[in-house]
Amino acid sequence: MSTFGTLFRVTTYGESHCASVGAIIDGCPPGLPLVAQDVQSQLSRRRPGQSNLTTPRDEKDLVHLQSGIEHGVTLGTPIGLLVRNEDQRPKDYSETDLYPRPSHADWTYLEKYGVKASSGGGRSSARETIGRVAAGAIAEKYLKLAYGIEIVAFVSSVGKVQLPSSVSPPSQVSADDDDTVEDALSPEFVELLKTVTRETVDAQPTRCPHAETSERMVKRIIRAKEANDSIGGTVTCVIRGVPAGLGEPVFDKLEAKLGHAMLSIPATKAFEIGSGFRGTQVPGSKHNDAFVRRADGTLGTTTNWSGGVQGGISNGEDIYFRIGFKSPATISQEQQTAQYDGTPGKLAARGRHDPCVVPRAVPIVEAMAALVIMDQVLIQNSRKAAAALLPPITTLPPTMVKPSAEESK
Amino acid sequence: MSTFGTLFRVTTYGESHCASVGAIIDGCPPGLPLVAQDVQSQLSRRRPGQSNLTTPRDEKDLVHLQSGIEHGVTLGTPIGLLVRNEDQRPKDYSETDLYPRPSHADWTYLEKYGVKASSGGGRSSARETIGRVAAGAIAEKYLKLAYGIEIVAFVSSVGKVQLPSSVSPPSQVSADDDDTVEDALSPEFVELLKTVTRETVDAQPTRCPHAETSERMVKRIIRAKEANDSIGGTVTCVIRGVPAGLGEPVFDKLEAKLGHAMLSIPATKAFEIGSGFRGTQVPGSKHNDAFVRRADGTLGTTTNWSGGVQGGISNGEDIYFRIGFKSPATISQEQQTAQYDGTPGKLAARGRHDPCVVPRAVPIVEAMAALVIMDQVLIQNSRKAAAALLPPITTLPPTMVKPSAEESK
Amino acid sequence: MSTFGTLFRVTTYGESHCASVGAIIDGCPPGLPLVAQDVQSQLSRRRPGQSNLTTPRDEKDLVHLQSGIEHGVTLGTPIGLLVRNEDQRPKDYSETDLYPRPSHADWTYLEKYGVKASSGGGRSSARETIGRVAAGAIAEKYLKLAYGIEIVAFVSSVGKVQLPSSVSPPSQVSADDDDTVEDALSPEFVELLKTVTRETVDAQPTRCPHAETSERMVKRIIRAKEANDSIGGTVTCVIRGVPAGLGEPVFDKLEAKLGHAMLSIPATKAFEIGSGFRGTQVPGSKHNDAFVRRADGTLGTTTNWSGGVQGGISNGEDIYFRIGFKSPATISQEQQTAQYDGTPGKLAARGRHDPCVVPRAVPIVEAMAALVIMDQVLIQNSRKAAAALLPPITTLPPTMVKPSAEESK
Amino acid sequence: MSTFGTLFRVTTYGESHCASVGAIIDGCPPGLPLVAQDVQSQLSRRRPGQSNLTTPRDEKDLVHLQSGIEHGVTLGTPIGLLVRNEDQRPKDYSETDLYPRPSHADWTYLEKYGVKASSGGGRSSARETIGRVAAGAIAEKYLKLAYGIEIVAFVSSVGKVQLPSSVSPPSQVSADDDDTVEDALSPEFVELLKTVTRETVDAQPTRCPHAETSERMVKRIIRAKEANDSIGGTVTCVIRGVPAGLGEPVFDKLEAKLGHAMLSIPATKAFEIGSGFRGTQVPGSKHNDAFVRRADGTLGTTTNWSGGVQGGISNGEDIYFRIGFKSPATISQEQQTAQYDGTPGKLAARGRHDPCVVPRAVPIVEAMAALVIMDQVLIQNSRKAAAALLPPITTLPPTMVKPSAEESK
Repeated sequence: MSTFGTLFRVTTYGESHCASVGAIIDGCPPGLPLVAQDVQSQLSRRRPGQSNLTTPRDEKDLVHLQSGIEHGVTLGTPIGLLVRNEDQRPKDYSETDLYPRPSHADWTYLEKYGVKASSGGGRSSARETIGRVAAGAIAEKYLKLAYGIEIVAFVSSVGKVQLPSSVSPPSQVSADDDDTVEDALSPEFVELLKTVTRETVDAQPTRCPHAETSERMVKRIIRAKEANDSIGGTVTCVIRGVPAGLGEPVFDKLEAKLGHAMLSIPATKAFEIGSGFRGTQVPGSKHNDAFVRRADGTLGTTTNWSGGVQGGISNGEDIYFRIGFKSPATISQEQQTAQYDGTPGKLAARGRHDPCVVPRAVPIVEAMAALVIMDQVLIQNSRKAAAALLPPITTLPPTMVKPSAEESK
Repeated sequence: MSTFGTLFRVTTYGESHCASVGAIIDGCPPGLPLVAQDVQSQLSRRRPGQSNLTTPRDEKDLVHLQSGIEHGVTLGTPIGLLVRNEDQRPKDYSETDLYPRPSHADWTYLEKYGVKASSGGGRSSARETIGRVAAGAIAEKYLKLAYGIEIVAFVSSVGKVQLPSSVSPPSQVSADDDDTVEDALSPEFVELLKTVTRETVDAQPTRCPHAETSERMVKRIIRAKEANDSIGGTVTCVIRGVPAGLGEPVFDKLEAKLGHAMLSIPATKAFEIGSGFRGTQVPGSKHNDAFVRRADGTLGTTTNWSGGVQGGISNGEDIYFRIGFKSPATISQEQQTAQYDGTPGKLAARGRHDPCVVPRAVPIVEAMAALVIMDQVLIQNSRKAAAALLPPITTLPPTMVKPSAEESK
Repeated sequence: MSTFGTLFRVTTYGESHCASVGAIIDGCPPGLPLVAQDVQSQLSRRRPGQSNLTTPRDEKDLVHLQSGIEHGVTLGTPIGLLVRNEDQRPKDYSETDLYPRPSHADWTYLEKYGVKASSGGGRSSARETIGRVAAGAIAEKYLKLAYGIEIVAFVSSVGKVQLPSSVSPPSQVSADDDDTVEDALSPEFVELLKTVTRETVDAQPTRCPHAETSERMVKRIIRAKEANDSIGGTVTCVIRGVPAGLGEPVFDKLEAKLGHAMLSIPATKAFEIGSGFRGTQVPGSKHNDAFVRRADGTLGTTTNWSGGVQGGISNGEDIYFRIGFKSPATISQEQQTAQYDGTPGKLAARGRHDPCVVPRAVPIVEAMAALVIMDQVLIQNSRKAAAALLPPITTLPPTMVKPSAEESK
Repeated sequence: MSTFGTLFRVTTYGESHCASVGAIIDGCPPGLPLVAQDVQSQLSRRRPGQSNLTTPRDEKDLVHLQSGIEHGVTLGTPIGLLVRNEDQRPKDYSETDLYPRPSHADWTYLEKYGVKASSGGGRSSARETIGRVAAGAIAEKYLKLAYGIEIVAFVSSVGKVQLPSSVSPPSQVSADDDDTVEDALSPEFVELLKTVTRETVDAQPTRCPHAETSERMVKRIIRAKEANDSIGGTVTCVIRGVPAGLGEPVFDKLEAKLGHAMLSIPATKAFEIGSGFRGTQVPGSKHNDAFVRRADGTLGTTTNWSGGVQGGISNGEDIYFRIGFKSPATISQEQQTAQYDGTPGKLAARGRHDPCVVPRAVPIVEAMAALVIMDQVLIQNSRKAAAALLPPITTLPPTMVKPSAEESK
């Protein structure tokens, strides 16, 4: 369905060429200072037409807040918002009508609904993500103000061009018993996670915060564009300052919710948290994150292979994960394929599209991360508030009970 | 929370050392032939003690069905079931009480709840997965009978030992503009996905259906065991025979639900569907799956980089995905770490555990896959049944409407 | 929260004086013919300013459909819609700011959120119901087209003025063992339920389809208006043509969902289905609805004390229920009360409001009824479609299995 | 479905004659002292065989807690529990197999599922309520410990025998303009709501806390029993000590959730809160509950026509409501009806059943009330905890902001 979240919920509507796309955000804490610009700034990072790397469609994507806010403060009631569809141009697509576009949603939507939008895949349009980004911006504002949580996503690869510090060396299997462990957690990568900001990310047109790599990525994207082709990439995201205790055991582990959120973004095919796939090759004795007392007296870990989540619950360390985006299906070269009725033929797409989506995907990833963390914060706060009203536990062995703030001094 | 699903829902309870673990399965279609053995067979594939590769704990894991079935037929009402905890032995853990086990859930559970089970991570116990496997077995039985859907998971890597046909060649980046595309979809891999069965999987103690690779995996696991260490791996799963149209647009795309389900399994850190991370390096012109008329007259695709899902909706091709399991956190060697109160020290785990979880993870992956598909089948069936009661659409251009079965002849 | 439904879901936003009120309707079957007028006609029945019995505020309440529809046909994707708030006039309320209005939501909203809208109770505004009515109109259109279901609500009492045939005689308890049963199901009432239409309802300004009673109701409302006072009433609703089998056992019985839906309408305090409170006085031997073969060969009941629902599931008979609306809290006479800080004082409300809400509540009741039935239809359709794919049941005694359509001939 | 609640959730399974009935309670706050007796005491109030007024079936209904508790303290993880079905005696029902029992769920279940349990209505069995009562007892323990909330239900009528103080005088309509308002809130009734306890309730076999009325009720029930007939009644429930601010605007108003919960109890047909149906006849000028400063400085109301809920949100006053239970459908006299296939005939029920269910319904009503309040407490706590982390609001007029505890001194 078109709703995400349990206590902080976003519901969206809209496809490419209808009157508007929009969202209702329900469950926003009351008393949050909020103006349109808080939302607009992330929408503008998402919108097309930002550089020659993206689609030439130039959509302003101005957000109109409808409700739930007075005098710049949230009321706790649902926030309705919408963005008008200005550049509709449905005729761009008219000649392709006999063909389902390969690897698009045209055919699967028709199979699912029996009807489909004239624009093709309907809700699979990238414009659908506007509602997510708007809702995420609101969540993010709360998380920043209430917890100091920071969420930064960046492009970590385009095609084979990879951010050096974010990737393990080639995993050539010399022998089964080779225990040489490639350090996926290179000091450079750990440092990047701790320091990367939206400013350093946006300083590059690719949103890869490493100038030299970004230049190579630009070339790769331009090459795809000039070849009427497209190319994929990966986005890495770090969430700093998350309190321990978020995530629900069993089915709603924090990585499960994050994975769900990220894999719901159009064109995503892969997700890994912490050491991810590479970590499967690292023996437990090395992969385990040993505990250590932090400067502030709380427990931390010496390494962070876990990516900030253990047993499905945040442990207070940086949460980081990586998402794989496939190459865009819309390309401007002729493709040999078949029509809806099975007749073989050649399809030449003519729409204006991104040769590579990852630069514009960055704020979408941040938004979905914010939505997940926000919802989990609200759920965990409820539990903590409920437990705080109970009398102290006296019948359990001390190792089974968390010392109160008082006692733990 | 401990509930998964919308119309086909499983809710579970239980930790390692309580009276029992169990589940309630709600929303099972009425009229399904079902006996305890249908559930037991998958539980027995999951239980410990199956070989010298797994924990020596020998638990029978006998399932007791409580309700929802009469004369071997489901009534459509909730199916309650439970498995008693026989081998509780809580004292195994007694000396570790001052230490949160590294990369375990001990500390995060204590942070979350303020109390924790004497066994440590409570619901993060592997015994929690019994309820999932039982529920999945019921879903699977339905899917097989009603649609002929087959779900087969298998071990595709242990540490660096990889199933040859399931992995791309070393991805050495010679140059940014190198467009040599490694064929992730080797003919051998495609053939394996089409033919692999539970029998061929279970013929190997590792559940890797390739005898030679399995032998190397056995050695790798034994080596970890003898070193009092552990090792991770990956499981690949294929779902054959899924009808087109499953998966809900936007937030509940089929890959998002599958990712959520898989990343909720203990020890998972990564998920990719279809071409996954590797696909991000393949240009769109090659990555797109061209359409073609199948022998039965319906549309299919010539390749399957998409993994059977386009725009978040199944397209009728094989659905396949891969899950990364980290090395088990429980190891039998001394670890330098800290106590709950921050005091540094050395912890020696003494419990009996698996040096590698992937062989036993196979039925869990299958179960979660079945739960996702089952729920989506029920949701999509509802839509199709609703649409079928409406008069034929006459006002839309023909390219926007799926021809009825009648007309499409 | 602001979402209602499981498979057919409406989410609403908006309070009195914000930019607009609106809704997202998710889960509408694809292929439904739908134009703005389908929604507008019910909105116009709900809007203020229809007669001298209602508030003089004259709001056009024009609906703007945003998405989910092309060429007058639903796509199956979310339908966004909004109605602008034209007559905002926030200053009407300015002098009352120190006082929480008695029996309004001003104080409880402030307690709940810590902030409140300038207009007072925020989402407790009657304008919130616009989204419900719009969504209900869409559901209703489907139910009519697909099943021929008819939903008609009407005013059955205003203050003490009651529709004669809808009410039991005075329940004077002469003696405990008096078994004289007042026939709550008078032939006139049963006939009214079978024949009442929106036309006969709208023929009266009160929406009470009995001209003589309606005249008395008009007088009662005018008397309240002239006294700067208000008066309550009841609305009765009948749903005709509902198939047997709707409603989910245990927590989501059909009467529970209907009760939930109706008691979520502003100003409601009471709900009863079938014989309701009066039925508690009727012995089982009389209250039981005996079965009988209908003309079409199916089973029906000779009486309908149950109100069309047995064991929480529809039985195919007319579903009817009654809702009690309290007298509006907003009155134009001075009230002795206290300020937010507890200071006693006198409050004189000056807003323009309805002396009696029940005439305008009629389309809201119909809308909520449609939303409940629609959702249950989709859920039950899913089950039936799932069961239909299973092989015939052969192991159960024949009395436990419903004969197939084939066999039952 | 068989799940109730959002953050505090109960899921149940089981029908009359299966192995056991049970429940999983998810979301219980950690650290709650809990032993089996806390649950057993309410189960024992619900079980049959307590007096000659109820069914002679003597079921012990011993609860077996399975998980989620160690050393008498909840862990915050799901609590599994079950009660074995001891007195199955399926043959009691064997001769009725050709007939759907009138006003039972036999026929509607068969229509819904296509199969039905041998016992008839499957989940419509009264044994289904065991899971509710167990879950409610846990919620109640928390609410008592954390907030001092008290929940007491009692029988307010059996047939025409009514508790004097709980009922308005005969509502004889002398004239439309008769404004003589019967005081539904008699001082005796208000006093009863404030003082009634489980002890005074259980002191009477009918659970009507008024000895003289109870005696008349006993006679009425015995008369029904001797006539092989049955009789209905009403249960009134009061919840004392509920904090202001519970209940969610729009669709999940507190009365909507309470109504949903109560109308999901078997045999219920009616629900009213506060002044209910009678309040519809009382002009707003009288019905409004004026505010007044309470002794502790907070705001209260001078009357409580609202029943403790305004705008769908609790206002801190006593919450009270009344539920109507129809006469039990199972009677031991011959009934003229039809078989499943429509053949007319006579059915003689032979099972052992309650002539009147309201005495045993009392703990079920209390349980459902506890489940609703518990869930709303957790949801509202989440919001308050979230808002408390934000900086003070400075941009809103003071009348729009609740003074902080500090300032309000």
